[in-house]
Amino acid sequence: MNIAKPAIPSFQPPRRTLMGPGPSDVPQRILDAMARPTIGHLDPAFTDMMEQTKALLRYAFQTENKLTFPVSGPGSVGMETCFVNLVEPGDKVIVCVNGVFGGRMLENVKRCGGVPVAVEDTWGSPVDPAKVESAFVANPDARILAFVHAETSTGAQSDGAALAAIARKHGALSIMDCVTSLGGTPVMIDAWSIDAAYSGSQKCLSCTPGLSPVTFGERALEKVKARKSPVQSWFMDLNLVLGYWSGEGKRTYHHTAPINPLYGLHEALVMLAEEGIENAWARHRANHEALKAGIEALGMRFVVNATARLPQLNSVYIPEGIDDALARGRLLSEFDLEIGAGLGVLAGKIWRIGLMGYSAKPANVEYCLKALTAVTKG
Amino acid sequence: MNIAKPAIPSFQPPRRTLMGPGPSDVPQRILDAMARPTIGHLDPAFTDMMEQTKALLRYAFQTENKLTFPVSGPGSVGMETCFVNLVEPGDKVIVCVNGVFGGRMLENVKRCGGVPVAVEDTWGSPVDPAKVESAFVANPDARILAFVHAETSTGAQSDGAALAAIARKHGALSIMDCVTSLGGTPVMIDAWSIDAAYSGSQKCLSCTPGLSPVTFGERALEKVKARKSPVQSWFMDLNLVLGYWSGEGKRTYHHTAPINPLYGLHEALVMLAEEGIENAWARHRANHEALKAGIEALGMRFVVNATARLPQLNSVYIPEGIDDALARGRLLSEFDLEIGAGLGVLAGKIWRIGLMGYSAKPANVEYCLKALTAVTKG
Repeated sequence: MNIAKPAIPSFQPPRRTLMGPGPSDVPQRILDAMARPTIGHLDPAFTDMMEQTKALLRYAFQTENKLTFPVSGPGSVGMETCFVNLVEPGDKVIVCVNGVFGGRMLENVKRCGGVPVAVEDTWGSPVDPAKVESAFVANPDARILAFVHAETSTGAQSDGAALAAIARKHGALSIMDCVTSLGGTPVMIDAWSIDAAYSGSQKCLSCTPGLSPVTFGERALEKVKARKSPVQSWFMDLNLVLGYWSGEGKRTYHHTAPINPLYGLHEALVMLAEEGIENAWARHRANHEALKAGIEALGMRFVVNATARLPQLNSVYIPEGIDDALARGRLLSEFDLEIGAGLGVLAGKIWRIGLMGYSAKPANVEYCLKALTAVTKG
Repeated sequence: MNIAKPAIPSFQPPRRTLMGPGPSDVPQRILDAMARPTIGHLDPAFTDMMEQTKALLRYAFQTENKLTFPVSGPGSVGMETCFVNLVEPGDKVIVCVNGVFGGRMLENVKRCGGVPVAVEDTWGSPVDPAKVESAFVANPDARILAFVHAETSTGAQSDGAALAAIARKHGALSIMDCVTSLGGTPVMIDAWSIDAAYSGSQKCLSCTPGLSPVTFGERALEKVKARKSPVQSWFMDLNLVLGYWSGEGKRTYHHTAPINPLYGLHEALVMLAEEGIENAWARHRANHEALKAGIEALGMRFVVNATARLPQLNSVYIPEGIDDALARGRLLSEFDLEIGAGLGVLAGKIWRIGLMGYSAKPANVEYCLKALTAVTKG
């Protein structure tokens, strides 16, 4: 043997309180679900569970879209699945950029051979519908509008209904990133007429990271089916994925689904339905109000205006005189508490405090405020 | 609310014995590991675990390649990661096709804009090195050789060392699929001079499906860095993934890693190192011999010649007069036993009996033979 075996023991993770931009705390019920015995991906019991998962996801997305399922990869794969299927080489795509994830959408459009038209807003602000309207007027040949509903990098929420309506008025499809919003604030795919959307398992659904729920409406599917060029990704090609997830007729083998993580997502969605999605939204809102009161009492300011503020992701300016890395290091080492750092132009300037899914509860709000007090006033 | 909540209870999977082509049985130790508390993907405790996982994977792959890590997706994503990074538009790629997965490689080459040259062998036979040599002579401008070490669709093993040597002699890189071989039979990345390889978590490593260990050597990385065109996939672009997995300097956020499944893979690799990889190979071999004796006593014939037979994946012809679907249905309903059906041209003609990872044990061999006796002789 050339390579000797390394002496590495089993991994025992520390027990953290997760109040960053995701993953959020995963409840024991979901952890237990992931530890149930693995079965085959073509087992009738598993395919029954897949059908249930699709029904539960339709509830979460508030849609009747038949093609609603979890992509077997993290949110970035859900994003790329939307773009590689819907953007053909030469397609003009209006991309709203008001944070990291809008920028990533732009990059996706380029790599699909699309022609991106960026509509920029300040990081921390929502997307301005007037600018999007102007972009369509200036680019009447734009085929797609892409925007982030809840910018994870800033905590700003944009008006999904208004943006999708502009796209539809101009005969374009809409692609919406709702990674951070699904399950935490209203995401109304059908009521807003969104054509394609993707989310993540590890935010307000409180499951392990690694799965990306997506939904595609009829207009989006028509565009995929009418493509002149093949989808550049084999793994993400909806024409192939459909055979596995559609549930119509014989189920075709495409790839081996991540069985145990899917047990977890199923359980997370059962819990969401048990609570009722309106109650989940209200819970996120109520915990945000409590956190906000405490944050403001500590003298910290929010990055996002109250009108566009996501309850589940609270971006605040780091108080003057406080060292970013040192303070977050103390939160982790002294309190086992994770909060998020700033990204991109906001790196070193802000903290992102998540109240997502199972983490959105009074005990976490109190604990976080206690810890923040210690490291900023101590 | 437009969409009412569905009344769906928690999912309780049946307890199966998994002896198909993967997933294999997952030991309780690994299931328990996946149920440990979720932590953040940038937590120092998690990044330490990532470094350990890389070291453990180097042992499994028998390589010193620094860039050895688990891709956050199933084996198909590992495959696509190799092709989108290494194949540039116009690159000629010799692809060995002797089963489903060679065909999938061919499809990947096309979608990357490469020019595939197929070298075909009968399904159930190994790749013929003489044909590969001839293909290089006829195509001296071929840049890459791609082949499947262990064809999951047939159970045939090809000579990785010989094939990689031919590629190297002709100045080409080699891409090897070792999804079904890693941990079950020797996979010697450095000794064979393989430039890029990918595997899966759910075969001889006995973890949940959904992760794809990959390894890239220096020559492969040089080709990626010298690319003239950008990698068509944002998610799979090694230039970006490197910043997250390299462990050099500041770790850059790329995507949110699938935390709990990675706990499981770490534990699976710790178990492999505890056993010793040579012992794991010997165990797969010994259980294969026992199964083979029983299979032959039942009068069933193997699809693959003894010289190229994978111990961990036993393809046998369905006995005459036995209904494929009916027999597998009885195995599942009466014995909770999963074996694999044939794929492609072998559909309806063969069964694939896996002895992979934790499933490769005498109790499973006995149980499988008992069940096969009941449904074929009963």
